[in-house]
Amino acid sequence: MAERTARQPELAFYILKEHLPPMTKIPESALQALRAVADPKSILPEDAWAPHLEEWRGRWPGETPLVLAPGSTEELSRIMAAAYAHGVAVVPQGGNTGLVGGGAAKGEVIITTKRLRKVRDVSPEGFTMTLEAGITLQEAQQEAEKADRLFPLSIGAEGTANIGGVLSTNAGGVHVLRYGNARDLALGLEVVLPDGRIWEGLNALRKNNTGYDLKHLFIGGEGTLGIITAAVLKLYPRPKDHVTAFLAVPSPEHAVKLLSMAQDRSGGQLGSFELMNAGTVDLVLEHFPDLPRPVKERAPWYVLMEFASGQKGILAQVAGGILENAFEEGLVSDGTIATSEAQARALWTIRHNASEAMKNDPSPCVKCDVSVPIASIPAFLRRADETVHGMEPGARIIAFGHMGDGNIHYDILGPKDGPHDAWRARMTDFEHSIHDVVVEFGGSISAEHGIGQLKRDELAERKSPVEMDLMRAIKHAIDPKGLMNPGKLLG
Amino acid sequence: MAERTARQPELAFYILKEHLPPMTKIPESALQALRAVADPKSILPEDAWAPHLEEWRGRWPGETPLVLAPGSTEELSRIMAAAYAHGVAVVPQGGNTGLVGGGAAKGEVIITTKRLRKVRDVSPEGFTMTLEAGITLQEAQQEAEKADRLFPLSIGAEGTANIGGVLSTNAGGVHVLRYGNARDLALGLEVVLPDGRIWEGLNALRKNNTGYDLKHLFIGGEGTLGIITAAVLKLYPRPKDHVTAFLAVPSPEHAVKLLSMAQDRSGGQLGSFELMNAGTVDLVLEHFPDLPRPVKERAPWYVLMEFASGQKGILAQVAGGILENAFEEGLVSDGTIATSEAQARALWTIRHNASEAMKNDPSPCVKCDVSVPIASIPAFLRRADETVHGMEPGARIIAFGHMGDGNIHYDILGPKDGPHDAWRARMTDFEHSIHDVVVEFGGSISAEHGIGQLKRDELAERKSPVEMDLMRAIKHAIDPKGLMNPGKLLG
Repeated sequence: MAERTARQPELAFYILKEHLPPMTKIPESALQALRAVADPKSILPEDAWAPHLEEWRGRWPGETPLVLAPGSTEELSRIMAAAYAHGVAVVPQGGNTGLVGGGAAKGEVIITTKRLRKVRDVSPEGFTMTLEAGITLQEAQQEAEKADRLFPLSIGAEGTANIGGVLSTNAGGVHVLRYGNARDLALGLEVVLPDGRIWEGLNALRKNNTGYDLKHLFIGGEGTLGIITAAVLKLYPRPKDHVTAFLAVPSPEHAVKLLSMAQDRSGGQLGSFELMNAGTVDLVLEHFPDLPRPVKERAPWYVLMEFASGQKGILAQVAGGILENAFEEGLVSDGTIATSEAQARALWTIRHNASEAMKNDPSPCVKCDVSVPIASIPAFLRRADETVHGMEPGARIIAFGHMGDGNIHYDILGPKDGPHDAWRARMTDFEHSIHDVVVEFGGSISAEHGIGQLKRDELAERKSPVEMDLMRAIKHAIDPKGLMNPGKLLG
Repeated sequence: MAERTARQPELAFYILKEHLPPMTKIPESALQALRAVADPKSILPEDAWAPHLEEWRGRWPGETPLVLAPGSTEELSRIMAAAYAHGVAVVPQGGNTGLVGGGAAKGEVIITTKRLRKVRDVSPEGFTMTLEAGITLQEAQQEAEKADRLFPLSIGAEGTANIGGVLSTNAGGVHVLRYGNARDLALGLEVVLPDGRIWEGLNALRKNNTGYDLKHLFIGGEGTLGIITAAVLKLYPRPKDHVTAFLAVPSPEHAVKLLSMAQDRSGGQLGSFELMNAGTVDLVLEHFPDLPRPVKERAPWYVLMEFASGQKGILAQVAGGILENAFEEGLVSDGTIATSEAQARALWTIRHNASEAMKNDPSPCVKCDVSVPIASIPAFLRRADETVHGMEPGARIIAFGHMGDGNIHYDILGPKDGPHDAWRARMTDFEHSIHDVVVEFGGSISAEHGIGQLKRDELAERKSPVEMDLMRAIKHAIDPKGLMNPGKLLG
């Protein structure tokens, strides 16, 4: 992906948010102890450090005295035991594609899982596969496909993000509505703990009531409790048929009704349900003028929905019935149903180009990755829009997202004519104001992207003291020396 | 359920397994402190204690100085704060239908959630409902139905088991294949912690990456970390059509292939997939001679499968195609497809009467509630059968269960002609030998029923020291005084 290496100068703003405390320099003797237990191949030469010190958009530039890339769980175990013995703090890294600075080092030793590359097992009949952490998400999808199965997790960075990373951050993506988040797709884990011991939780069981379900601490734990080295992942039957439709809807209320009706009538064959406001589609068509207009008349809101079925030939009838019903009930005013794979891709391109269009716009963008209960989405959007326009009538609201999961990317571009500097200075205010509305509706200030450094302080402010205490108690119980990814998530 | 109150004298054996250490008597002043913060209505009179001291099969007779049934989360919070201040140990109870002695008291104060009865919210459009812990599972299903939605959790004890209990034990049941365990059906929780503080984790979000996912510690935590007082539960569209078939299959290998093919071709519309060995069906037909023989010829193995669809009218064609294909490929040798609701129920009755048939048999029964990876089920069953018949050629193996979840109820009746006492003395040996085989195949010694007292010591022997240490560290972090359900799960 080309944009991976491009820096966005307008985002330099975020670099000013300095979250990590300055580290005490790690003594050379301690580093030597780590090198001593590592395979020489695992010690990266300095000229290979750059990708581990750079965040892909240029935020959070890193600093480290040592980058290790162990080739096996056992080797990582030895390294972590040495780090624990010498009090050396470590930052685990997956594909380094995160958006919240969770993998940035500030003097810690970086440990990348990129050389843990074994496919340990694929069981088409058991609908599972066991992969090591360094396999990329795209490779994981391909392994499943080779076995005529689906591994449904899919995110923009899938070519680079790896299994260890997507589990540590509980990645979401476009198929959550039907298959759940990364958390829901893991049956078992292997984890190297802060003191170097290996937790062998690598079971392929769909039912197992033998004590606390520890895997859910490491999944979404952002590397603050241990390093995931392998996972047993769930596989699914591959869908045999798709129906994709781009629809104009009068309001988010209508979209909620449409979602509910489509879920009910399709019996769970709804794969995606994406909401976009007019601003989103206008912006995409402005920046990508060659894209086809998806519906004849400009509408206030749009829905991109996709049904997926395990049977061939039946779906068109089911989806057709649902859409016909939606027109009759006034839930939908206009729409296009893709009649070919190519047309379906073109419809999806509009949705997928939303981020790119914002990047191309001269105004810097406030990005809020939030979720609220599905039924509250209309009220949330109304209140959020009022808040933004109350603060700045000329602000452009780009609201879109995985409505079926309650996940809205609520983004705000400054007034078309600028000035951009004045707008830039107000971006944090806008973000916090939107988060206030989110909290009012019982929502989350980070639906998909996690906390890392970016939202660490805000997390502590927004969560209840009870929840923060519980999280800190668990952190202390599992990482008593505080050596795992310090300054991230909890600080 | 009539059998709820019947005692089974042959199971008195288990009472000899005395797991709980004798408690120090709780001083009257401490009990008085708890009574002082409780609503008078919440203090159960002694003549109402019996159901809280009796396990439904007569195992683990209880002992307590006080039974409290708080009417609100706030009241429970006050009670727990007082218990914490005075070092009073408590045993939380849901519907008291568990099978492993997790709710039995040995001198602790019993706290039942049965008076936490509010339906806080039902959102058909958001596909969620928020219920307090004391609502029974059956009532929860009915609440969902009133909103034209499905709450899919279904277990034998659903008329008595309550939401707090099914979540604390991560109940499974007959619909796990499609909808997951209790754990998978909860979006958020409200929990009173050991020190009386309330964790407000009651969100209705499908995506939320803001720190450790704490709910998964309390779900399946068997009341050792806190008391669940309310939950946001996921709802699903109600299925509109079913196809039920009872099939003769040549072997478990054939059943695995059939399962895989049916899942793939139905696109996830397989709701249940139950395997039974010949011994199971023979025993049921012996004890219930009025039941119809499901297939003409006795077969070595049987599968009961059910498809469920959100659309009317399409399913028969899909299921028909799958079954036709299964016959052609030799996966199935004979079968009955239900042509009416009544016939479907009759087919299910054979499966549902397995436990009842074992109870009616004069020989006591070794019951192993185990799971293994689905693809390993055939090899597991072969090895387990060899093990049992190597130990006792006349033993009768009743193997059945939720094959789609890898969950087998592997039960063993003594030789038909007895003697029962000699058999009874060997039951633990048989159980441990089966568990050895389970562990060899990477399986679980408690798929559905949990650990409680019954398997506490065995858990510590079977789990790795690393996993036990992690669990103990978490227990200590959240319940530092060890007051929550002592002697259960971890001891």
